[in-house]
Amino acid sequence: MRNKVITISREFGSGGRTIGRKVAEALQIPCYDQEIIEKIAEKSGFTKEFIQEKGEQAASGNWFANAFANRGTNGVSLQDRLWLIQGKVILDLAQEGPCVIVGRCAHYVLRDTADCLKVFIHADMASRAERIVRVYGQREEAPEKRLKDKDKRRAAYYEFYTDMKWGNAENYHIALDSGVLGIEGCVSLLLEAYGRFRA
Amino acid sequence: MRNKVITISREFGSGGRTIGRKVAEALQIPCYDQEIIEKIAEKSGFTKEFIQEKGEQAASGNWFANAFANRGTNGVSLQDRLWLIQGKVILDLAQEGPCVIVGRCAHYVLRDTADCLKVFIHADMASRAERIVRVYGQREEAPEKRLKDKDKRRAAYYEFYTDMKWGNAENYHIALDSGVLGIEGCVSLLLEAYGRFRA
Repeated sequence: MRNKVITISREFGSGGRTIGRKVAEALQIPCYDQEIIEKIAEKSGFTKEFIQEKGEQAASGNWFANAFANRGTNGVSLQDRLWLIQGKVILDLAQEGPCVIVGRCAHYVLRDTADCLKVFIHADMASRAERIVRVYGQREEAPEKRLKDKDKRRAAYYEFYTDMKWGNAENYHIALDSGVLGIEGCVSLLLEAYGRFRA
Repeated sequence: MRNKVITISREFGSGGRTIGRKVAEALQIPCYDQEIIEKIAEKSGFTKEFIQEKGEQAASGNWFANAFANRGTNGVSLQDRLWLIQGKVILDLAQEGPCVIVGRCAHYVLRDTADCLKVFIHADMASRAERIVRVYGQREEAPEKRLKDKDKRRAAYYEFYTDMKWGNAENYHIALDSGVLGIEGCVSLLLEAYGRFRA
C-alpha cells in the first residue's frame, strides 16, 4: 500500500503554498514546504539561504548556462548535490504517510514510490504581482519583472532535472488558475479531486 | 452583461466531449459540438465531412507545411475561410446565452466577447487508447499511433491560428486528467469550478 501524496508545483505569487497549507489542514495531514529546507539543512550542512535559493530554481533562465555552471572535475555541481539530498528528504517524508509537498519537483522525485495527485497552480501576471506586493511585502517597483525572472529560473531548474516541460498540463492531474478560481476555490477543488483520485 | 461560457479543449480520446455534454446537462444549458458543424455547413456550403476533417486539425503536424499549403494567390486557404466562418458561428452561439462549447479554439475566438471558463481535458495514452477502441469502435491496431497523429495535428492547428502553445496550463483556468480523475470526477470538478468562476 503506497501513500497518497499531493504534490503542488506553482508559479511564484500564485498562492500555491497557501493553498497547500489549507488543503493539508482540511485533510489533517502534514504540509511540507519550509520543513523540507530545515531537514535538508540538517542532513547536508548547506545553509538555509543556499537551499532556499538553489533548491528549486536555476541560477539563470538559460538551460545551457546552467548545464555547464560550477561543475567540478567530476561533473557534479553543488546544486546537483542539493538535488540528490532534497530528493532523499522528499522520499523519506512520503514514506511516513499521506502529506502535501509544495515545490521542489516532488511529483518527479516520487514518480515510482508514492501515489501522487499532481497539482499545478498558476495565475495571470496581474494577480500574482498584486499578491507578492500584498503578502510578501515585495517592493512595488516592477513586480512583473521579478515574477518573469522567477518563472524563467524555476522553469529552467524543472526542465534541467526532470526533462519535462514546466507548466505543461499533461505533467499534472489538475492545473488551476488561482487568479480566476480564487484561493478558497482552489482548496475546495483540490479536496474534491483528492477524493476522486484513482492512483 | 456578458454570457458565461464553458469552453472545452481536449485531447482526442480523453472524453472531453462526454464531459462537456454532462456538464451542460447538469447546468441545463446547451452544449455545442456537432451542432457547430451543422451550422457551419448551412452558412458555408462546405460539406460536414470537410468541416469535421479541417475544422480543428491541421493537414499535417508540421507548422511550416501548413502555413504554405493550398493557399491561393490571395494567400487565403479553404481552411482559413472555414476558420473565419467557424469563428462567426461560435460568436453567434455565445451571444445567445450561457453554453458549453467543445473544441474549435472557442476560448480564443471568444477572448474579447464572452466570459469563458477555459477548460482543458487530457489523459494518458493508455486510457485514451482504451477509450477510442471502446467508445468509437476504432480498430484496435495501433490506436496509439492514431492518437499521436491526432495530437500533432490538433496542436499544429491550434498553434497556427491562436499563436499559443497547445496543452500549456496557463492557457486554461482548469486542466484535468480524465484518466486519473474519471469522467464523473471531471464533471463534478467543472461544476464546482463554474460556480467559483470569477470572470
